[in-house]
Amino acid sequence: MSALRIIPIGGMGNVTQNMYIYEYEDEMMIFDCGIGFPTSAMPGVDVMIPDITYLKEQLERGRQIVGMVLTHGHDDHIGALPYILPELPEFSIYASPLTAGFAQNRMADGGVEREITVFKDGEKFKIGQYFEVEGFPMTHSVPDTRHFAVSTPEGVIYHGSDFKIDLQPVDHVLPDFDTISRIGKEGVLCMLMDCLRVEREGWSKSESAVYGALEESMIDVKGKYIVTLMSSHIHRIQQVVNIAAKFDRKVVFIGRSVEQNVEVARQLNKLFIPAEMVVNKRDIQNYKDSELCIVIAGSQGQEGSSLVRAIYGEHPVLQIKKQDRVVFSSDAIPGNELPYFDAIDELCRNGVRVLYPDVVPDLHQSGHGGAMEQQMMVALVKPKYLFPMGGQDRHREKFFELVGQKMGYQENQVVIPAHGDIVEFEGGIPRLGEHLNLQPRLVDGLGVGDVGRSVLSDRRALGTEGMIVLVIPKVAGRLDLENINVVSRGFVFMKEAQEVVDFIKQTTHEIVDEVRKNAKGDDSDEEVRRAIERRLGRRLYKIIRREPMILPVIMEV
Amino acid sequence: MSALRIIPIGGMGNVTQNMYIYEYEDEMMIFDCGIGFPTSAMPGVDVMIPDITYLKEQLERGRQIVGMVLTHGHDDHIGALPYILPELPEFSIYASPLTAGFAQNRMADGGVEREITVFKDGEKFKIGQYFEVEGFPMTHSVPDTRHFAVSTPEGVIYHGSDFKIDLQPVDHVLPDFDTISRIGKEGVLCMLMDCLRVEREGWSKSESAVYGALEESMIDVKGKYIVTLMSSHIHRIQQVVNIAAKFDRKVVFIGRSVEQNVEVARQLNKLFIPAEMVVNKRDIQNYKDSELCIVIAGSQGQEGSSLVRAIYGEHPVLQIKKQDRVVFSSDAIPGNELPYFDAIDELCRNGVRVLYPDVVPDLHQSGHGGAMEQQMMVALVKPKYLFPMGGQDRHREKFFELVGQKMGYQENQVVIPAHGDIVEFEGGIPRLGEHLNLQPRLVDGLGVGDVGRSVLSDRRALGTEGMIVLVIPKVAGRLDLENINVVSRGFVFMKEAQEVVDFIKQTTHEIVDEVRKNAKGDDSDEEVRRAIERRLGRRLYKIIRREPMILPVIMEV
Repeated sequence: MSALRIIPIGGMGNVTQNMYIYEYEDEMMIFDCGIGFPTSAMPGVDVMIPDITYLKEQLERGRQIVGMVLTHGHDDHIGALPYILPELPEFSIYASPLTAGFAQNRMADGGVEREITVFKDGEKFKIGQYFEVEGFPMTHSVPDTRHFAVSTPEGVIYHGSDFKIDLQPVDHVLPDFDTISRIGKEGVLCMLMDCLRVEREGWSKSESAVYGALEESMIDVKGKYIVTLMSSHIHRIQQVVNIAAKFDRKVVFIGRSVEQNVEVARQLNKLFIPAEMVVNKRDIQNYKDSELCIVIAGSQGQEGSSLVRAIYGEHPVLQIKKQDRVVFSSDAIPGNELPYFDAIDELCRNGVRVLYPDVVPDLHQSGHGGAMEQQMMVALVKPKYLFPMGGQDRHREKFFELVGQKMGYQENQVVIPAHGDIVEFEGGIPRLGEHLNLQPRLVDGLGVGDVGRSVLSDRRALGTEGMIVLVIPKVAGRLDLENINVVSRGFVFMKEAQEVVDFIKQTTHEIVDEVRKNAKGDDSDEEVRRAIERRLGRRLYKIIRREPMILPVIMEV
Repeated sequence: MSALRIIPIGGMGNVTQNMYIYEYEDEMMIFDCGIGFPTSAMPGVDVMIPDITYLKEQLERGRQIVGMVLTHGHDDHIGALPYILPELPEFSIYASPLTAGFAQNRMADGGVEREITVFKDGEKFKIGQYFEVEGFPMTHSVPDTRHFAVSTPEGVIYHGSDFKIDLQPVDHVLPDFDTISRIGKEGVLCMLMDCLRVEREGWSKSESAVYGALEESMIDVKGKYIVTLMSSHIHRIQQVVNIAAKFDRKVVFIGRSVEQNVEVARQLNKLFIPAEMVVNKRDIQNYKDSELCIVIAGSQGQEGSSLVRAIYGEHPVLQIKKQDRVVFSSDAIPGNELPYFDAIDELCRNGVRVLYPDVVPDLHQSGHGGAMEQQMMVALVKPKYLFPMGGQDRHREKFFELVGQKMGYQENQVVIPAHGDIVEFEGGIPRLGEHLNLQPRLVDGLGVGDVGRSVLSDRRALGTEGMIVLVIPKVAGRLDLENINVVSRGFVFMKEAQEVVDFIKQTTHEIVDEVRKNAKGDDSDEEVRRAIERRLGRRLYKIIRREPMILPVIMEV
């Protein structure tokens, strides 16, 4: 018998790096193709992309990719397209209008060109012979977000990617409750759903709740009004624009991502700004500060972002002055508190008034639904099985406790695969199938996948303890221990550390003598090198409690 | 005329690393001597300690340190004692009982022995000829916290270090409102006060509010009950002990800091545990899991902590099983979310039920007062000037807005010195005096102060991009470009990168040729080295968009 297989190749327990394969017989369809963000254990890594080994293996076995559907326009759902599409055969890609626009931009950034088909909401479309997909509006922190019902030979799967239930969305496009409840009535085998914010009981506030706080923040600003936000948050930008209009301020967009997204959203009529309100960033010196509302990228305090460059006086067109007001319409992403608050602190030091959600909570609202909204979705869709996704492992566990169990689901009705697990439905019953050894690929500069475990562990070691290179000349087959060259970085300040250098040379001399004495002939270069690495490290640790990386180089002359 | 000088040598805008000098004529008294915690820009650094250059300079000029007062037992107020005391002449140190006990332990850890005088609450004691100090009870997240009134020739300074106003403290020792209002009535020139939590409007919940949440978390636990918390939080531990008694569980303390602090607190009658309730961690196998309540260090998910070792199955005495419950009675410290949540996620992956403040908010309460408690202190003390401390720059700025201004203070009545500024009071008027160039000293292993700016910047570079060492032999005054030795770490996986190595050798060859051609004689080793560093870096960046550190070593043979 055949089975429907759901394969999260971005991994479960990751919030980001979303990529789900639905497989039946020889056909695979894919939801999303997102990047992930490196942890502190991955220094120097730019982004992570899903591991497509499984996809490639299946293609080699004659299976085919019958299509890809994009749920919404966030980078953790579309950002890996330029990396991954070139490695796969061509297939149809489907998305809502703005999602398609954002995805086209992402692809263009990476020099990739593919067509994207914009599907019609509420109309079913076939993907391959086994899948029939229907997309419909859902609310989230980017316009044109969709949820999907996927008819499969095993039954209907509800693909409920990132969402909140916003009853006062800025564009007045409510979640399509009619369609959702119709789908629920027709019967759903399993609902995959966003569980990220399950820890918050209750219902997330509407995006519209930000309006009042933003409006108040623009009162009595003598200089420029400068607001920073997630560059894809078109509804937030719309609200800022509407408020700026009331205060007779022109809007200026600064930052590549903001400028790019605003342009696409305006073209697609997802963002409405009277043309006369928009000022090009290069023309701001033609306006009084009090006439300007600046929307700028860098809401996480990212190094190199437009906002951070402006804060440190390094931006080519924007100077921030004491009379200006800076508003952070965004929270710190968990783990990113330090650069975020560094930016705020620096502004405070410069005497600039800053507002941010820690003091004005309504300046930001989450795009993800709390436990109550998740319960509401369960009540509407009434699936036989629940499959929490989009959260970390603690969120998926708490989803069972705070949503599943409370809505009367048994433990075996909540599917919580481990990272790498394949979920199979056969005869309407889920089970765990094969386990994949997923290795997210790391992108560093132009290299994809060449930075692996050993490079990262070297970087971590080098980065915390520094290193010592010992060059030992070997003349006529004999190590010349009187002429050892010691080079070090990140260990101690060498110009002031002649003592340490002497200790290193002296100790190396001793170690080589020891090796020679005990080796009974086996004092090969390799043997000597290894002895130095180990023993010099230990002896340094004893005197200074540091473990720099030690690199002995024997230089045959 | 003489002035009273207040010199925060731990710096302002730092939450941690607290150390304040009060100086009048030739006498200096000191409040606190705390460590700071390294930022991500300081890889490999263990802790930071205040810059005592100013102190040493004044000592050389004949000034003297007349005494030191410790406000409470947190490491950011006492942790630098073992590093700094040995560098200074001896002087009297004063503290409350538990603060003295904790400080003695800290000093002993560093092999330092000094006596500490336990002062009597509400009794004035002289420090030198100019300062008279009175300490009295205040509530905070460690027992025996004190605030101080310091009489000086310029007037009374209220030293209001870390606090909350807890109206139901676990030990029933309320803030000494009588003394505070008496001091206020007598007249206070300036109040230094903890502003850390000024962003929260309202009043922080009492520590007692944790009791209910902890009690509920112990219900229906079939295996061990394991709770992690700040190891100095004796009142939290007391509540856990009381609840454990109700549930007939023995208590076990695991983790050096927890064990040490519990021992001191019990000796000083600040923590009450019936002797028969305490089980040594090495005896836990003699008890059923359901009989045990384990209090363990590691509430920030710190690598190497007892909790984290237990989570990963690496603890010598504690195994965590599926039937156990793990409770985090602590929030993540801002910026430390990743290790904290990693620990929780790993427990979830292992099927262990975890409770933490994001799902059960009352499992933790802050030890710092919100804006309303800060206003309450202002109302009681009524100082002429306010001097926010203990916060970052944004907190000190918001303090003016949310506390000072609201209580009717003018901008010139709120003293907000920059990092390094000295505040002087003369004739009852504050002004900014000299500016110190404070350089917090970094402790790495046994080295104090030898890791500076250049070592850190090398570590950051090495840690994100790795490095390439090129050893070029120089035989008889000529570079031997056919025998360049390339060693690299943290750049690309070299065993698979023969191409890259070839490129490096080839390019180096070209660069040296270029130098020779253009040098017209000035092709010194230094010139060649610098050219390789710069140009090889640029050419590598072009092909791979990475910038490893390049270290050319010319090896004269």
